[in-house]
Amino acid sequence: MRISELSTQTGVPVATIKFYLRESLLPEGVRTSATQAQYDESHVARLRLVRALLGPGGLSVAAAHRVIQAIEEPPASVHELLGVAARAVARPGVVTDGDPRVEELMQRCAWQIDEKDHPTYAVLEEALRALDEAGFELPEGALDVYVEHMRQIAEYEIENVPTDSPTAAVRYVVLGTVLIEPVILALRRLAQAEASARRFG
Amino acid sequence: MRISELSTQTGVPVATIKFYLRESLLPEGVRTSATQAQYDESHVARLRLVRALLGPGGLSVAAAHRVIQAIEEPPASVHELLGVAARAVARPGVVTDGDPRVEELMQRCAWQIDEKDHPTYAVLEEALRALDEAGFELPEGALDVYVEHMRQIAEYEIENVPTDSPTAAVRYVVLGTVLIEPVILALRRLAQAEASARRFG
Repeated sequence: MRISELSTQTGVPVATIKFYLRESLLPEGVRTSATQAQYDESHVARLRLVRALLGPGGLSVAAAHRVIQAIEEPPASVHELLGVAARAVARPGVVTDGDPRVEELMQRCAWQIDEKDHPTYAVLEEALRALDEAGFELPEGALDVYVEHMRQIAEYEIENVPTDSPTAAVRYVVLGTVLIEPVILALRRLAQAEASARRFG
Repeated sequence: MRISELSTQTGVPVATIKFYLRESLLPEGVRTSATQAQYDESHVARLRLVRALLGPGGLSVAAAHRVIQAIEEPPASVHELLGVAARAVARPGVVTDGDPRVEELMQRCAWQIDEKDHPTYAVLEEALRALDEAGFELPEGALDVYVEHMRQIAEYEIENVPTDSPTAAVRYVVLGTVLIEPVILALRRLAQAEASARRFG
């Protein structure tokens, strides 16, 4: 199909499709002349993926590019894939400064994560710093409550990683990490409304 | 103190402080002349709060303004407070279109939330639509796993709402909703890395 048909079928404006082509988020079509190219169903599927990552996934163009690359050239092991996903969706420039609360927490959990290397370690520290700066004190033991529930969720998720193909595994891991976050947060807010109605309503 | 000292003490540039004053995120100081005003510790505390909301809290200026207003003029009941918090931090313009998965889920949980009214209901639908658009299929029963853990987290959180003053309750609810989200997401990613290392590492 031509670019105009690709646009009609996906609802993505032609100018936006051209932008994705320039940013290598979408592979080039097969050239049929100096000004025209043909696209197929793989472009339709890719466009839907890119829209999901940039829209509700909340990724920057650069982060979406890293995710697309991980799907196109999956690393050797599934465990490395998760690392790629974490780095792709991590905001760059957040620096670890060794929050003792995080270090104690990792020890209490007996977690083996290489904190120096994992970008999320610094993101967690930054999130705790933001609580401090806003003068918000977590109730005693709250961090352990959150850890325990996230540990159970993560174990369930990793059990369900498809292992039949690296591409399927990357898709599951990258999209599952990014796109399930808004689902989890929305459910927490609904559950808070429900719990609040029961306690105070 | 003068605005320059307020800037030094908080690390927020004078131009940014003036922007917050214009946007009513920070109350005016006491005027001492046509061009000067005096600020106090309450401005320091408020500036830290505004920085936390706009930074890691990820709120827009408009949303931060709604949060500040809820803290300054708390509604009558704690349950109404949670509603204000949810609306303040909800992105506007997300429309409910009645996803049957969400309706069935609410029925299975026997949740009484007024879905027509609660902005998060539409946010959850949008998040599920994003999964569909990206071609990501949730494993059977996954939504129930997420709901169960979020229900337990929310009950723990609502049990800990301080009831001694409305201001303390609003602070806890608004900041707890927004600022704990990055903590929960970071812990999920770390827990995934840990679970992945155990299964595949």
